[in-house]
Amino acid sequence: MSGAPLAPGATIGILGGGQLGRMLAVAAAQLGLHCHIYCDAGDAPAYEVAARYTVGAYDDEAALEAFGRSVDVVTIEFENVPAAALAAVAKAAAVHPPLKAVEVSQDRLAEKAFLRGLGVPVAPFTRAGSLAELEAAATAVGLPALLKTRRLGYDGRGQVKLDKGADLGAALDAIGHVPALLEAFVAFETEVSVIAVRSGAGEIAFYDPAQNRHAQGILAETRVPAAIAPEVADQARDIARRVAQAFNYVGVLCVEMFCLGSGDDRLLVNEIAPRVHNSGHWTLDACLVSQFENHIRAVAGWPLGSTERHSDAVMTNLIGADADRWLAIAREDAALHLYGKTEARPGRKMGHVTRLMPKT
Amino acid sequence: MSGAPLAPGATIGILGGGQLGRMLAVAAAQLGLHCHIYCDAGDAPAYEVAARYTVGAYDDEAALEAFGRSVDVVTIEFENVPAAALAAVAKAAAVHPPLKAVEVSQDRLAEKAFLRGLGVPVAPFTRAGSLAELEAAATAVGLPALLKTRRLGYDGRGQVKLDKGADLGAALDAIGHVPALLEAFVAFETEVSVIAVRSGAGEIAFYDPAQNRHAQGILAETRVPAAIAPEVADQARDIARRVAQAFNYVGVLCVEMFCLGSGDDRLLVNEIAPRVHNSGHWTLDACLVSQFENHIRAVAGWPLGSTERHSDAVMTNLIGADADRWLAIAREDAALHLYGKTEARPGRKMGHVTRLMPKT
Repeated sequence: MSGAPLAPGATIGILGGGQLGRMLAVAAAQLGLHCHIYCDAGDAPAYEVAARYTVGAYDDEAALEAFGRSVDVVTIEFENVPAAALAAVAKAAAVHPPLKAVEVSQDRLAEKAFLRGLGVPVAPFTRAGSLAELEAAATAVGLPALLKTRRLGYDGRGQVKLDKGADLGAALDAIGHVPALLEAFVAFETEVSVIAVRSGAGEIAFYDPAQNRHAQGILAETRVPAAIAPEVADQARDIARRVAQAFNYVGVLCVEMFCLGSGDDRLLVNEIAPRVHNSGHWTLDACLVSQFENHIRAVAGWPLGSTERHSDAVMTNLIGADADRWLAIAREDAALHLYGKTEARPGRKMGHVTRLMPKT
Repeated sequence: MSGAPLAPGATIGILGGGQLGRMLAVAAAQLGLHCHIYCDAGDAPAYEVAARYTVGAYDDEAALEAFGRSVDVVTIEFENVPAAALAAVAKAAAVHPPLKAVEVSQDRLAEKAFLRGLGVPVAPFTRAGSLAELEAAATAVGLPALLKTRRLGYDGRGQVKLDKGADLGAALDAIGHVPALLEAFVAFETEVSVIAVRSGAGEIAFYDPAQNRHAQGILAETRVPAAIAPEVADQARDIARRVAQAFNYVGVLCVEMFCLGSGDDRLLVNEIAPRVHNSGHWTLDACLVSQFENHIRAVAGWPLGSTERHSDAVMTNLIGADADRWLAIAREDAALHLYGKTEARPGRKMGHVTRLMPKT
């Protein structure tokens, strides 16, 4: 990206209307920028806090191009935007982050290959699209391992763990025989993520690495600072920097990594998300400038804001019925964030809670 | 207020669509509450971040009553809502804060009389609606003094300073011979304000007293902590508590006070604002729960949130052309807030900037 920053009064287009779009829209409004949301849902969390929204299908190329013409720049709030949708929007508006970053992160096999090509450590993996490939992969990678669909996996979906002696045919049945890869199962000690933000001018900044805990494949809790050595934190930032630079990235990028532990200080990258990320929600309450504001700043061509934290923080997701406890949480010394979703389906992210502690 | 708290998904009605309504709407959305704004302007800062808005006149009682029926509770973001408008809305919905608090604060004479009746110290004042009254008032109160219109004064408007020997007739001409009062001019050392919040259950909490600096009658800067002794801060909170309790107040209330200084620890109340207040904007960035969220919590019948600050803060208003410096401010280690106003008229509040420092 080059050229002048968008002045207050300009409009940011966001593909996707979920809670990430909602928090991006609020951040944009704080800077005097308007938002126009494009989403295929009749009702979506971002609509009520955006200046404008369009309900449209992600394969309606005419609507997408018109959306692009109505805004000054376009960004995304979920990485599984169809490539053709992005291409249609890109006919009419600049899109950040770069399409390449989105394409790579949509395909777990391409993502791992990209990371390996950069020299970034990842767990052993190989293609496993057929029974013959999976049998060869099980030998090459070893078991236990994870059979993962190449596409549309998030929050633990599209994954099957294969222990020694597992029925490989049944595993392929379970994922519906879609293109897949087999990845060595990593017994890690700690999962950390780094939220990086890079401007069009190549300026890059990092929020402090955060430590994540998942439950049933869904992020349950993020705490900062992470319980890792300073050298490991440096390593984490360095990996995020290499990924962002390789893509000539503009915006917020999240890199999730496993810290092997037990005396092994190596980090293995688990996945990258070319967007604001759940493991960065703590930045809303513990930093002067949140990941959402910094993403908007980057895509609008503004200088980046501070990524310093003023407090330590623990962020807890409210999944499904967890959000029924809103009144009890409102009584605590905590910041409650609810996403305005009406139906609390199991596994659905309904909100989150952040608790602050003095900075250590 | 009594009864159950409004559940997420309920709708808060806000009379007024300025920047205070905008920041209230964002705070409500964070809690999963929707907002419906009623305002007489075709475009207003709050509209783009609210689930719904109605453009209507403040004397359109049918529209106001319909607005009241469309929401679960109503609050205000400016105190000069016509009494008849509030009465129309109140036919259909509960209104917080109480009408009495709004009525009293609309009339500087009634406000001072109310405060004096509570035993709260105020500067000497008396009615001055005619030349005869003003001449008597000048003798009783003494000069220098301030001639103030009873109604529609804010940001220094509706005030004339009268020095010794001033032409009293010319002063009445200057304010258009509207109902007025004469108030002794107070040579104060420090102006402080206290943001209090009171729930329907009678729970009350205070943000730390903040120190204000005005320029040309408009708030220029607020800093916290204020440079006042702990006993003076206690006195300030005690005054705010007495005012809130006297009104059986629900919501956020701001009390502006003069600290006489020079060895005199007395506080004189300057004015009260029955709403969120510019001198509380620092709470957005320096507290886990802002004045806006606490106001929404109170009017929604929720428990109050913490009023603790995690950082010291200096908030600077961006008035008129000040906001043209947005790009330079975006480069600083500061939180920039712009209100989405297109036209930067002189004296118009366009945004504010908050700088944080470690808590002292």
